[in-house]
Amino acid sequence: MTTEIDADRTAQTEGSSEARIDFSVWAHERARHFEWLAEKGLPQPGRDPKRLIGAMRYAVLGGGKRIRPLLCYAAGAVTGAPQPVLDGAALALECIHGYSLVHDDMPAMDNDTLRRGRPTVHVQYGEACAMLAGDALQTEAFSVLSKIDAAPEVVVRLLQTLSRASGVAGMAGGQAIDLEMVGAHPDEGALLRMQSMKTGALIVAAVLMGAQSGRWEELSEASKGGLALYGHSLGIAFQVVDDILDCTQDTATLGKTAGKDEKDDKPTWVSILGLEGARERARALRADAQRGLDLIAADPSVPEGALVRLTEIADYVVARSY
Amino acid sequence: MTTEIDADRTAQTEGSSEARIDFSVWAHERARHFEWLAEKGLPQPGRDPKRLIGAMRYAVLGGGKRIRPLLCYAAGAVTGAPQPVLDGAALALECIHGYSLVHDDMPAMDNDTLRRGRPTVHVQYGEACAMLAGDALQTEAFSVLSKIDAAPEVVVRLLQTLSRASGVAGMAGGQAIDLEMVGAHPDEGALLRMQSMKTGALIVAAVLMGAQSGRWEELSEASKGGLALYGHSLGIAFQVVDDILDCTQDTATLGKTAGKDEKDDKPTWVSILGLEGARERARALRADAQRGLDLIAADPSVPEGALVRLTEIADYVVARSY
Repeated sequence: MTTEIDADRTAQTEGSSEARIDFSVWAHERARHFEWLAEKGLPQPGRDPKRLIGAMRYAVLGGGKRIRPLLCYAAGAVTGAPQPVLDGAALALECIHGYSLVHDDMPAMDNDTLRRGRPTVHVQYGEACAMLAGDALQTEAFSVLSKIDAAPEVVVRLLQTLSRASGVAGMAGGQAIDLEMVGAHPDEGALLRMQSMKTGALIVAAVLMGAQSGRWEELSEASKGGLALYGHSLGIAFQVVDDILDCTQDTATLGKTAGKDEKDDKPTWVSILGLEGARERARALRADAQRGLDLIAADPSVPEGALVRLTEIADYVVARSY
Repeated sequence: MTTEIDADRTAQTEGSSEARIDFSVWAHERARHFEWLAEKGLPQPGRDPKRLIGAMRYAVLGGGKRIRPLLCYAAGAVTGAPQPVLDGAALALECIHGYSLVHDDMPAMDNDTLRRGRPTVHVQYGEACAMLAGDALQTEAFSVLSKIDAAPEVVVRLLQTLSRASGVAGMAGGQAIDLEMVGAHPDEGALLRMQSMKTGALIVAAVLMGAQSGRWEELSEASKGGLALYGHSLGIAFQVVDDILDCTQDTATLGKTAGKDEKDDKPTWVSILGLEGARERARALRADAQRGLDLIAADPSVPEGALVRLTEIADYVVARSY
């Protein structure tokens, strides 16, 4: 298997040759590659300020599903994106995601103590260091983008997408709305709007940034819309499935505190639709994602086999609910 | 005076014509222009999420000396930078500066309740909203850069400078070192290193970004070094003068809690060098800044009169200590 990994690390990200590798092997290899990349690409341990850098690395290198890097690499196949550009985009995405987890877990926000099976950053490093580590990780995301070796047009495109998805109209705005929702019993539409911003926007950005790392300008407008529809549907599906797992699995399996949303009186897809309703919704969102993929498949500029991994990721996200 | 302001708003930023306007008039007009720009450029009030946007605007629109925008506009004259590009750079700088103040004031960090004569953001909006407002302001900074209407090379240059100055090797790293220093009685060298990162890096970035908004590639390497030396010297001088004012002025004059560093057992230039020693140091740093300006003046690509405002800002910063 070592040979496969090494071969793949230098291979083109375009579809057909990779499509022969089983999805779980591909996802495992991409996640391992990302771990290696982040180890190397984040500020190095032992350098000053040691404690801050330690907290930043603890936050990002703690494992996790790496769904955003997977989506980014998978979407890169659509435009034949070079691996080094995708690497920069993927690392930037995980720095943003990591920063948001560190800050969201803090006592002033969700006050959670367990994440990925380990103490959260503020429990491990204290609140001041956790706040700064989140801050510095956000900066690191944009610093990583700034150093990508690509045409400046490509870097600016990635910068536009990542900053729009992370800010007041995206992730940070969604978290603000989420905090206001506690105990408020929102309806389905309000929950959808909040999650489209809080988690959906960065998932959409992961898909778009993958494609924007390559020959984006050759894609049809329908394809670009299809990528956004796919990302949006998948982002919401991911939340629906998370809510299902939160009330059907135990803390040890999840690696985070189970049943916490219910205890905190937070609205979830299960509390609004019921367990079976939520499962039905996950299937409907999978169908929406497919409509997005079909739009891309109709674009003659997209290489054959380029959608294999995006399709498999969509299957994987929804399959987690069973 | 209205006529002067309107004329200046559309005028070129290059030296000679503006040099006729007195420094205090120029600085006042630039600060007013920046206020107008930030009012318009920040997320608009009344839009969702209202509370988050309210906190972001409160943090940035609260006045302040606007030293970073002033430096950015002044340095723009060195390379004939277009005003709209300078506007983007200046707004991005103040978003970063504003976010750092919001987070630094929070209970987990410096726990300050007064800033610019008003309650700090977490006192006014609560801790969760303050944390998110800081986060979203940082993102906003990079979002503003991403939308600058300039060649992509210029945007990437600004992105590189701002992200490097703000992160673990700059502002955020300096704050981490500052927190570790409380009660530690560092020597002069340690204080200098910390401040070069915590506040100096963003001041240097303001100067560099001003020049990078224009014909940066035409500058000599000596000029680029001169700009960095000027910014670095001024950044430290600014801190030295702040420390002098902190122990010689009252809370009402400062608009923030006077004598707080001493009470918190924080090292300052006055605690290390004494009051007269600190004043002497401010003068020496002014001389270092001048050496930077002299390097730029020797560059034939720099227009005549382009250094007037940079010179005046250096005079102003040091004059505040008396």
